[in-house]
Amino acid sequence: MREIAVIGIGQTKVDEHWDKALKELAFEAAIAALQDAGRETAEALFVGNMLSPLVSGQNQLGTLIADWLGIRGAEAVKIEAACGSGAAAFRAGLMAVGSGEIDSALVVGVEKMTDKAGHDVTAALATAADADYEVDQGVSFVSLNALVMRRYMHEYGWKHADFAPFSINAHANAVHNPYARLREPITLEQFEKSSMVATPVNLLDASPTGDGAAAALIVPADRLRGDVKRILVAGSGAATDSIAIHDRREPLFLSAAYLSSQQAYAQAGVSTTDIDIFELHDAFSIMSALSLEACGFAERGQGPRLGLDNEITVTGRVPICTRGGLKARGHPVGATGMYQIVEVIQQLRGECGKTQVDGARIGMTQNIGGSGATILTHIFRQG
Amino acid sequence: MREIAVIGIGQTKVDEHWDKALKELAFEAAIAALQDAGRETAEALFVGNMLSPLVSGQNQLGTLIADWLGIRGAEAVKIEAACGSGAAAFRAGLMAVGSGEIDSALVVGVEKMTDKAGHDVTAALATAADADYEVDQGVSFVSLNALVMRRYMHEYGWKHADFAPFSINAHANAVHNPYARLREPITLEQFEKSSMVATPVNLLDASPTGDGAAAALIVPADRLRGDVKRILVAGSGAATDSIAIHDRREPLFLSAAYLSSQQAYAQAGVSTTDIDIFELHDAFSIMSALSLEACGFAERGQGPRLGLDNEITVTGRVPICTRGGLKARGHPVGATGMYQIVEVIQQLRGECGKTQVDGARIGMTQNIGGSGATILTHIFRQG
Repeated sequence: MREIAVIGIGQTKVDEHWDKALKELAFEAAIAALQDAGRETAEALFVGNMLSPLVSGQNQLGTLIADWLGIRGAEAVKIEAACGSGAAAFRAGLMAVGSGEIDSALVVGVEKMTDKAGHDVTAALATAADADYEVDQGVSFVSLNALVMRRYMHEYGWKHADFAPFSINAHANAVHNPYARLREPITLEQFEKSSMVATPVNLLDASPTGDGAAAALIVPADRLRGDVKRILVAGSGAATDSIAIHDRREPLFLSAAYLSSQQAYAQAGVSTTDIDIFELHDAFSIMSALSLEACGFAERGQGPRLGLDNEITVTGRVPICTRGGLKARGHPVGATGMYQIVEVIQQLRGECGKTQVDGARIGMTQNIGGSGATILTHIFRQG
Repeated sequence: MREIAVIGIGQTKVDEHWDKALKELAFEAAIAALQDAGRETAEALFVGNMLSPLVSGQNQLGTLIADWLGIRGAEAVKIEAACGSGAAAFRAGLMAVGSGEIDSALVVGVEKMTDKAGHDVTAALATAADADYEVDQGVSFVSLNALVMRRYMHEYGWKHADFAPFSINAHANAVHNPYARLREPITLEQFEKSSMVATPVNLLDASPTGDGAAAALIVPADRLRGDVKRILVAGSGAATDSIAIHDRREPLFLSAAYLSSQQAYAQAGVSTTDIDIFELHDAFSIMSALSLEACGFAERGQGPRLGLDNEITVTGRVPICTRGGLKARGHPVGATGMYQIVEVIQQLRGECGKTQVDGARIGMTQNIGGSGATILTHIFRQG
C-alpha cells in the first residue's frame, strides 16, 4: 500500500450541542480539517458513526454529510463498528487512498447522543453488545464492564482505588484541552466517593457520553509538496473477538488489541519502547489496564501498576489520554476513534501546550468497539 | 489498484426466514461462497447491512458474523449506505484487497426485516430518507417514490401501464430462480388491478421486502491458479446526490447513477453496447426507467420504451433483472447489492438455465441507497 499522510485535522468540543444537528457537527470538524490542510475539497468521505439510525432516525449518513459539506456527488459511505466506528472509518479511508482508487479522503467521526432521553441512549448503546446472549439477559454496556472489572480485581488482587490514577490523569490533562467535555481535575477522594453506577464501576470510572465530531484529511504522501503539515500513517491494524464476553477464551485479555497492535507494530517497524504517546480507549478505567497489557506496555494483570507508578502522565514512560481521553475529553461513541487520531496528530505536531509530550515522534491510537470486540490500532510518525 | 477476481458466491432464498437469525442467514451465504471457491477462510469480512440496529437491536454486525463464521480474530466491519449497503460493502472489500493490505475478503450483504411489525419496518426504512426534510414532513419511502413517478409520468406523458413490462419481466425471470421470493408470473391485467400503495405506485410497482443474505469471496487475480471459477471485477464506481429529492437540480435524473456508471465504464474500458446484462435497482418500477436513462441505455424520459419494445428480456438488447430483480427475487435492503453481484456472476459463469443470457461476457450491477442518493455501479467480465 502506498504511504499515506494526514495533512489536516479538525474537531468540535465534546459537549451537549443542543443547537447543532448531527450534520452540522460533522461539518464543523470536516471544514476545520480542510482549512487546516489548505484544501477546498476531497474526493471521498468516510463517516464513522454508531447511533444515528437509533438516535437521529437517519441512515446513509455519509451521503447526507457529503451534501451538507458541499461535496455533493462525491463518493461517501458510513462505517459502523460500535464505539470503534471512528477508527474503522479511518482505516476504510486509508485502504481507499492506499489502493489508488482515490487520491484524497476526508474521514469524519461524528455522534449526537443528547437528543434522546438517557434510558433511550443506554438502550441504543447496548446494541454494541450481543443482542441474543447479553442484552436479552438484561445487561447494559456499563454492567458488562463492571463484570469484567470485578473479575479482574478478584483475579489479580487489585482494590478499586488502584484504578484511580487512570481517571485522575485523564482529568488533569483535559483541563488544558479546550475541546474536552470535563475540564476539572479530580482527586483520589472524589474518585473513591463518587456515585456507584454498576458495582464496582462508579461515575469516575466511566467516561461521559456527549455530542461531537473529529475529522482528518488523508492523501498519498508521495504527492505532497514540502510545506504542508504532514504526519505519516506508519501502521494500521484491525482485529476482532467474540462480542459476548463470556464466550472468549480469556475474558480478561483483549486478544483483538493484541492482534491489531502486533499488526500495527510490524507495519511501522516499531515496538512498545518506540511509542511516545498512546491514546487508548478508556471508556471505563478497567479498559485502560486491559489495553496497556494487551499492547505490551504491562504484564498481564499489572496494568494499574503503570498508573500507580506515575508512568502514564505526560512526563511518564507511557503517556496516555494526554488530551483527556474518553474519561474527560468525553466519549461521543462513533466519533471517539477520530478524536484519538486528531489528538495524536496534535502531539506529533507539537501543538499540545501544557500537555505536550516532549520530543514526541511516534504516537499510537487504539479504538475499541464493544467490550473488546472490534479493535483498531494505528501508529503515526513525524515525516 | 491490482486486479480483483470473484472466486466464490453464495446466497440464501429471499423469504420470511422465521427460523433463522440474522447471523445464521449471513453464515449460510458466506459458507456457500467459501465452499464455492474451495476455500476454508478469508482474511477479512465486510458486511453490508442497513436495519440491524433498528430491527434486531444489534450493532457491530461485522464482528458478530465473523465470530459466527468461525473466523474470530479476523478484521471485520459493517458498511451502511441504506439500500446501497451491499455494493458499498463490496467496494470497501475491493479497496481493501486492492490496496494490498489484505489478500482475501468475504463480502456479505444481509438483512432481516420480518422480525418486526410492518409499520415498524416502514419507519425503519424511512431512515434512508432525509430525517429533517422528508421524514419529519410525514413521507414514507414509498410515497417519495410515488411523488417521483407521478412527476415523471406528467413530464414525459407516460401512463401507468407503460411501466408494466418492468414488473412482468422481473416476475417471468424469477420463476426460474430458486432463490427468488415471488416465483409467479404476472400479467398486464394483474399489474393494472393490483392494490394501490401510494398513488401511482401500486403493489406490483413495488419490490417486496424479505430476509436474505448473499456473499462473494474476492482475491487478487494475479494470485490465482488456473482451475478456479474466476470472474474479474472490471470497474467500480460510487457517487452520491442529495438525499432529499426536492433539493436535487433534476429530481428525475439519477446524477449519482450517471457519475458512478461513467466511472465504472471508464475503468472497464467499455460502453453501454458492451454490457450483456444489467442488474439494476428496481425497488420501484420508476427506478428501472431512471436507472436505464442515467446509465445511457435510454434517452431521458424514454426508459419505459425499452420495456414496451421487449428490449429488457433475457433475449433483448439490454437484459435486466434476469434473476427476478428486486421486484420478484425480493429486496432484503442491505443485502440486495450483493444479490445483484452474485446474479451477474452466475450469468457470466453460464449458470442461469432458462434465464441464461446467451454469450454473456460482461455484466453490470447498480445498487441504490435512498431514492437515488448513494449509487454504486460495478462491471464484471469473464477472465
